Amino acid sequence: MKFIRFIYNNSEQYGVVSEEGVKSIKGNIFSEWEFTDDIFAYDEIEILAPVTPSKIIGIGANYVGRKEDVPESLPDLPVFFFKPASSVIGPDKEVIIPNSIEEIKFESELAVVIGKKTKNISKEQVLDHIFGYTIGNDVTAPQFFHDDGHWTVGKSFDTFTPLGPVIETELDPLKLHVKADINGVEKQNSPVEHMIVPMKEMIAYLSTVMTLNPGDVILTGSPLGAHFVKDSDVIECKVNEIGTLRNTTVRVSTPINS
Amino acid sequence: MKFIRFIYNNSEQYGVVSEEGVKSIKGNIFSEWEFTDDIFAYDEIEILAPVTPSKIIGIGANYVGRKEDVPESLPDLPVFFFKPASSVIGPDKEVIIPNSIEEIKFESELAVVIGKKTKNISKEQVLDHIFGYTIGNDVTAPQFFHDDGHWTVGKSFDTFTPLGPVIETELDPLKLHVKADINGVEKQNSPVEHMIVPMKEMIAYLSTVMTLNPGDVILTGSPLGAHFVKDSDVIECKVNEIGTLRNTTVRVSTPINS
Repeated sequence: MKFIRFIYNNSEQYGVVSEEGVKSIKGNIFSEWEFTDDIFAYDEIEILAPVTPSKIIGIGANYVGRKEDVPESLPDLPVFFFKPASSVIGPDKEVIIPNSIEEIKFESELAVVIGKKTKNISKEQVLDHIFGYTIGNDVTAPQFFHDDGHWTVGKSFDTFTPLGPVIETELDPLKLHVKADINGVEKQNSPVEHMIVPMKEMIAYLSTVMTLNPGDVILTGSPLGAHFVKDSDVIECKVNEIGTLRNTTVRVSTPINS
Repeated sequence: MKFIRFIYNNSEQYGVVSEEGVKSIKGNIFSEWEFTDDIFAYDEIEILAPVTPSKIIGIGANYVGRKEDVPESLPDLPVFFFKPASSVIGPDKEVIIPNSIEEIKFESELAVVIGKKTKNISKEQVLDHIFGYTIGNDVTAPQFFHDDGHWTVGKSFDTFTPLGPVIETELDPLKLHVKADINGVEKQNSPVEHMIVPMKEMIAYLSTVMTLNPGDVILTGSPLGAHFVKDSDVIECKVNEIGTLRNTTVRVSTPINS
């Protein structure tokens, strides 16, 4: 089932993608909901990022180029980072590059949406705690990475976390491919089995540190091939069975230090 | 005015501290609110952290020991980090040390609570965007800092961000002293003028990167003197005109990797 969040007639709502269009629902997608009688065509609605997470957690450099390069043992302490909810935008919205940033990187990622309160779970329990899967673009300005290794600023600019277009709740997360096209040319294409820290291990580990809540998003890392883009580039992040998250970059003259 | 968030009779509400007790209010403290007729005694209520932030931003190593050591020019890129909302606890709640963590550090800090949507403001505009001030304890497990400089895991364990006890909306933020006592012995005591990146500059800078929202919390750094504590230690973080944020550490046997 594909959940979608959208605006119709100034009101924010959720729906489910169907052959007839987007079937509006009411209630809480993480607990109880039901269909309303409304069905909308795509040209009637504005699609939003499918969740408003209380946290977004990313993992650094989590892909190798070939299955045989996946290390046998997991890192003791993976590189995790947070992105703020204020950086989230939906599909077809513009990724804004302030003038002080020379160039930004795109990173297409499988994004896991947590479905229930999650603390201290084992990797065998992880799938039961996942609501579904969407696509994330972990946009980054490495120029704002601190020399001492802190990525906070470089990953936190407004519009730097496109999410969407839908949350797919029914798929096998171990059989997905993460791709990205820039201006129609494929730049990333990798099966998720090239992850160094696999999704289940990642989420089980995180749950031993902090409580994950419904709607929290885990960005599971980006395949090799991410690179810099400038303005007016079209970034299409793709995961099979979920769809395409399409955003265009635009440069604005906002100063970094006012 | 001192705002306080609390539970009475299973219902979460805000109040204002007065001589007669905690005067209950209804509405949104960041926009419109009014007093109800209820006044509660402290022994009738359970005090909570005064906000549920959509983000908590900390700054690394932001104090020097003497006013004359404050550098004349600001760092190009300060070290900022996020703490997750899931790590927030209120006054008198226990800071939990999982068995896998040997010891934790306390860090007493002046915590700024943002009052309105804030983007691209100058330092002259900062005070107008602040709702008030509370106290934060940036509890940290440096053992979980990544060798490459990422602090995410070490700062994100549940209970690692005590906040409170109140938000004071009327004070001069440039005339405060940040202190901490461990088991009744003073360990930190510094005027905020020993900050390397002063509060106004810090928030103006952050606003050029990301939108700050009402209730967001900026932890402005901790004075020299923070050190390790173990279990059953009493941490009292103090800022004059705000109060005392008191928490006790406790060790639990939760495994880090389950």
